[in-house]
Amino acid sequence: MPVGTHGAIRGLTTPEVADIGARMVLANAYHLYLRPGDAVVRAMGGVHAFARWDGPMLTDSGGYQVFSLARYRTVTEDGVTFKSKLDGAMHAYTPERVMQIERNLGADVIMQLDELIAGGSDVADARAAMERSLRWLERCGAEFARLSREGRAPLEREPVPPGTPALAPSNDAERTAPAQVLLPIVQGGVHAELRRSSIEGILSRGDWAAVAVGGLSVGEPKPAMLATLDVCDMHLPRDRPRYLMGVGFPDDLLEGVRRGMDLFDCVAPTRMGRHGTAFTRDGTVQLLKSTLRMDRAPLDDACACTACTQYDRAYLRHLFAADEPLGPRLIALHNLAFVLRLMREARAAIVDGSFGTWSESWLARYRAGAPTTP
Amino acid sequence: MPVGTHGAIRGLTTPEVADIGARMVLANAYHLYLRPGDAVVRAMGGVHAFARWDGPMLTDSGGYQVFSLARYRTVTEDGVTFKSKLDGAMHAYTPERVMQIERNLGADVIMQLDELIAGGSDVADARAAMERSLRWLERCGAEFARLSREGRAPLEREPVPPGTPALAPSNDAERTAPAQVLLPIVQGGVHAELRRSSIEGILSRGDWAAVAVGGLSVGEPKPAMLATLDVCDMHLPRDRPRYLMGVGFPDDLLEGVRRGMDLFDCVAPTRMGRHGTAFTRDGTVQLLKSTLRMDRAPLDDACACTACTQYDRAYLRHLFAADEPLGPRLIALHNLAFVLRLMREARAAIVDGSFGTWSESWLARYRAGAPTTP
Repeated sequence: MPVGTHGAIRGLTTPEVADIGARMVLANAYHLYLRPGDAVVRAMGGVHAFARWDGPMLTDSGGYQVFSLARYRTVTEDGVTFKSKLDGAMHAYTPERVMQIERNLGADVIMQLDELIAGGSDVADARAAMERSLRWLERCGAEFARLSREGRAPLEREPVPPGTPALAPSNDAERTAPAQVLLPIVQGGVHAELRRSSIEGILSRGDWAAVAVGGLSVGEPKPAMLATLDVCDMHLPRDRPRYLMGVGFPDDLLEGVRRGMDLFDCVAPTRMGRHGTAFTRDGTVQLLKSTLRMDRAPLDDACACTACTQYDRAYLRHLFAADEPLGPRLIALHNLAFVLRLMREARAAIVDGSFGTWSESWLARYRAGAPTTP
Repeated sequence: MPVGTHGAIRGLTTPEVADIGARMVLANAYHLYLRPGDAVVRAMGGVHAFARWDGPMLTDSGGYQVFSLARYRTVTEDGVTFKSKLDGAMHAYTPERVMQIERNLGADVIMQLDELIAGGSDVADARAAMERSLRWLERCGAEFARLSREGRAPLEREPVPPGTPALAPSNDAERTAPAQVLLPIVQGGVHAELRRSSIEGILSRGDWAAVAVGGLSVGEPKPAMLATLDVCDMHLPRDRPRYLMGVGFPDDLLEGVRRGMDLFDCVAPTRMGRHGTAFTRDGTVQLLKSTLRMDRAPLDDACACTACTQYDRAYLRHLFAADEPLGPRLIALHNLAFVLRLMREARAAIVDGSFGTWSESWLARYRAGAPTTP
């Protein structure tokens, strides 16, 4: 899922994002709650109509942002209070409030509020946060049910605001009326026993449409992340999707798929793109590298995105050297197109039974970081 | 002409710029000379192939930038020496060197090097600069002719670099082999007599394909600018285009057309767009204005650009409030679409004989700054 934190995917329009094969996108409840406010988004017809994305959408609860971005946060059993970075105002984030915010935003899939801890936390801290996240999941579930009973139904989507001739193409023509679902998040740091308990606790508390794995790719060593994914793979139900949160570099995506993960989000493709780092089959390319100065080859000759079909590396390099905003836009688009193509290739390899050897060979070439000029 | 200072129009691709009706674009010789270098652009097939614009292009000499941006510039009869803002290196800009640079870049239309002075300069300073600009025009013309004689022909364009499947659509299918032309620039500040002398001096020095008017919109009072345009209109030949340099706000464009000007360039549409100021028939709209917070109307319901057909004002405001790069991109596109449409309407009104009344009514509505919400 391309990440549109504020309901916009860094510099790109929704038709562009759909054109490169995105099926589902993410927005962040924390950012939209602060600006323009979840009530405003609801009044504007919900986040689909507001951001012009007619396909599936997911909102993260914003727990990660509260824990990592907010100043002076205080965590209690009730929830988190924090000071807004924008204006210094105090806000209270409880499981119930987060459900109300995400209901107002109206995404198809919403995430529970969970407690996040630092990557290297010890077992005691990790256990306390994992257990609190389970209690918060119960409260999220109860509030989610109450909102539905109270008639605060998921928003009726308004995909075509009056006076707007054309919106994003529908990615999902057969989708019926939108029914919002709530997803739980597995926590427990890099401690196998805690991850197992977290999964058991989650599965005993409901019949979830999918299960998310959180708290990884937050500074822990790569082998610890992969071992933790192995544990999750072993214990998570095999009959429904698993969503690995916050993971999005090409090699990590494939390692996730190898461990049974289905859905991913990460700002890496757009953030790397913004800073002039492009994904290619042969590893990343720094666009400011002087060897690209007169390189008339396309960035990636197998890629169908605008950056690769319309421009050459010399010009793309020039855009970054001259600080032209077309550069970040084009490379964000390319990086998203690259990971979406990677996921399509992975799906095809799974279907034809070649995934194991295909993914090994893909990773070997990517990690070798071979030539950037053919 | 949309302005692509570094060979890129702020955040937009060339097909997007062509789609909103642009026929000719501008790039800046000074910026491309410093980065990536005119020799690099020449080696990449010239500025058309480099920037993927297959229609007519003009390069400004960069005189304006040397005079306004460079540090420690020294002007002598020979030319200007200046210290680069980028790395502090010293550069010499002479009429001859500028012709070599612009020949290397390979635009269809290139501008002479002229001497620029402050908006409020007195007659003596304005006369000295105007007369020097005439002498520099002679030197530019001689060097331009020498380069052609020496076989340093205008570049053979390479509109489709090898390996690039699709480029910008050709805007000018019937255009034959590119023949570069050099244009002179009328100077003389706001002093009618000097403008008249400048025009006489220019016309006595060659048979120019078009004549540019420079040194306006640089801080002089608006009535003085319009009076100076009246003088130029009276003395410039009527059988070839007049190019008013650096003018591009909608009302100034129409005032220019009313005074016989044909061609314009200005960074205003893209620069205003970047800062959240949108052009509309009823004046400019500040997108951060709080009244737009829940405004679901399109920015301009008569505009066919992506900003106006895909999004509403509430979302466009949100993009600027959240500092999302899609905002500057969309409003730069809208503002360019707006002025290009204005010029199309002006051409149609000239053809059907209604230009006088049409332009008065257009300016009255624009200057009234009427409602931003219908």
